[in-house]
Amino acid sequence: MKQTTPQHLDVRLCPRFHRAVELIGRRWTGAVIKVLLGGPRRFNELLGLIPGISDRLLTERLRELESAGLIVRHVEPGSPVKVVYELTCAGAELEAAMDAIGQWAERWIEAEPASA
Amino acid sequence: MKQTTPQHLDVRLCPRFHRAVELIGRRWTGAVIKVLLGGPRRFNELLGLIPGISDRLLTERLRELESAGLIVRHVEPGSPVKVVYELTCAGAELEAAMDAIGQWAERWIEAEPASA
Repeated sequence: MKQTTPQHLDVRLCPRFHRAVELIGRRWTGAVIKVLLGGPRRFNELLGLIPGISDRLLTERLRELESAGLIVRHVEPGSPVKVVYELTCAGAELEAAMDAIGQWAERWIEAEPASA
Repeated sequence: MKQTTPQHLDVRLCPRFHRAVELIGRRWTGAVIKVLLGGPRRFNELLGLIPGISDRLLTERLRELESAGLIVRHVEPGSPVKVVYELTCAGAELEAAMDAIGQWAERWIEAEPASA
């Protein structure tokens, strides 16, 4: 059964919220999730779609996301084998949060870092 | 005028989204924003409401959020002076994103780290 927090306790930080926001916000993690919301991708496709990420960091983030249960790694037999990364249900359900962040960014983040 | 991205380019990562998600997700930053969504707070109140954060890190995150334009620092005269931190419009508009993350966390993040 779902537990609800009484309104008067609501100012305290929910540990689950805290863990979620830090998981999503970890360097490059939000980017990887955002791109995978567009559909399953191979490693090199992800590299191409996330400008600036390195092989090493992409590998690391994919492993973390896999162990957090947000993505799955499919190995399709063949020569060479094809490895595809895909969001799980938990990962895919981040879409609303990612959209809300995107809408906020469109409104409040400048297109280019200010040069003033 | 607002620029729109053609649908076929939509799989590429938007740099503004990327900067937003990494700003929000930075260690403790989401937590500070979440708590300030409940209303303006003094430094020691924030310390009390965010279990685990240190003086030093709270100071650092508040400065970063101030320079990113997400919070303002009010100094109210008196003895001792009272310093209060408050979200700006930009900060307050993160509420939808924070709520979406909170809803996701409620559904997908375990209440306690798994001990298995």
